[in-house]
Amino acid sequence: MAEMPVVDPPRRPGRPTRPALTEDTIAREALAIIDELGWPACTMKLLAHRLGVRSPSLYHHVDGQKGIVDLVRALVVREIHNPAIQGMRWDDAIRSFGIAYYRAFSGHPNTIQVLSMTPVRDRDTLIMYETFLQTLVGQGWELPRAFEALLGLEHLALGFAYEWNAEDLMLDPAVVAAQGAPLLAEVTRDRTDQASDVEHTFMNLLGRHIEMFRHEVDESKGPHHEHP
Amino acid sequence: MAEMPVVDPPRRPGRPTRPALTEDTIAREALAIIDELGWPACTMKLLAHRLGVRSPSLYHHVDGQKGIVDLVRALVVREIHNPAIQGMRWDDAIRSFGIAYYRAFSGHPNTIQVLSMTPVRDRDTLIMYETFLQTLVGQGWELPRAFEALLGLEHLALGFAYEWNAEDLMLDPAVVAAQGAPLLAEVTRDRTDQASDVEHTFMNLLGRHIEMFRHEVDESKGPHHEHP
Repeated sequence: MAEMPVVDPPRRPGRPTRPALTEDTIAREALAIIDELGWPACTMKLLAHRLGVRSPSLYHHVDGQKGIVDLVRALVVREIHNPAIQGMRWDDAIRSFGIAYYRAFSGHPNTIQVLSMTPVRDRDTLIMYETFLQTLVGQGWELPRAFEALLGLEHLALGFAYEWNAEDLMLDPAVVAAQGAPLLAEVTRDRTDQASDVEHTFMNLLGRHIEMFRHEVDESKGPHHEHP
Repeated sequence: MAEMPVVDPPRRPGRPTRPALTEDTIAREALAIIDELGWPACTMKLLAHRLGVRSPSLYHHVDGQKGIVDLVRALVVREIHNPAIQGMRWDDAIRSFGIAYYRAFSGHPNTIQVLSMTPVRDRDTLIMYETFLQTLVGQGWELPRAFEALLGLEHLALGFAYEWNAEDLMLDPAVVAAQGAPLLAEVTRDRTDQASDVEHTFMNLLGRHIEMFRHEVDESKGPHHEHP
């Protein structure tokens, strides 16, 4: 779609200047609405209103709800994608990608469900995936294994991104103890801050995810595998 | 809260008989609304309307929005929790729990965000977690490791539960190829059915998750670990 500003209704005196209507300004406004009010609130009508244009103008730039998904996904992906992972060792590349993915979606939890359930069409996302695959395959990984590492990493990151946004401790030791779950009470005993606990657990599991694939990759190379 | 039916307005002639208002009927109606319309639609007002009672009656049974979360979580957990995992070997227990978790949330994707971001208070969920921990700890696992296995498993299952609900292939080989992502095109080439592809990938990653912990548990027992 063209990046040309649409023809708007004649400007009234005193009306503030607006930025030109581009895919980027539309994507940013859509993401702002979704972050603030949730995805169902992000209708073409509200989006047009917030951008100060009429709905038909917006349809010149966006292919309706599906188009909004593409634009918003590409915008979030631009927070994640780092072409430099191609120069990293595979374990560093996985860690870097996983952390970036987790951080981006921690900032935009209201995007997770729709983006997880709507087919990917935008080039930015496909190129991000391709870069991840190239990095691993270039270091001797089998392609299907690299793809599963990618999917597992995404889901791990998304779950923790939700939890990072919990308003309070997901498992409050006092509540747990009162309900007769002694092991759960013991293991959550020192938890005091949801965000930092989530961060800690995510990093541990990300490390495990990497070690899991290290074992497999080592084993597929023969019996004399080294442990780093 | 009591399971007593509330006192309703006098019945008009011809009005159909309703089941008594219990926590269970409320939970089932709330989940039906959420499955159908999404969580934001499940207001106390709509819930009361669908149950055929006045909103104040509903407040006798449910502690507002937070109470709805507790009731819905407990209802979904009852689809997952199987006390018999305590008699299983840890790897079978993890597999059984993971599959049940994935299946339950595949059936209720609209519950995932709110349940992932709202602190757990209901006894059913806490007992389900406690049973999982007891099963692993009873077979020699360190408690923190068992807890991280639980969290990792949950997030893995939730991500795939979303994807299982995608209306079409998340990654369509034709779209991918057209956008210049050759490795991604190759690895998605044979994908034709979103639900069965997701199922297959989830099962693979669940198996990996189990092997990952098998390696760790073996290694913590000394250098002469066996591979099954």
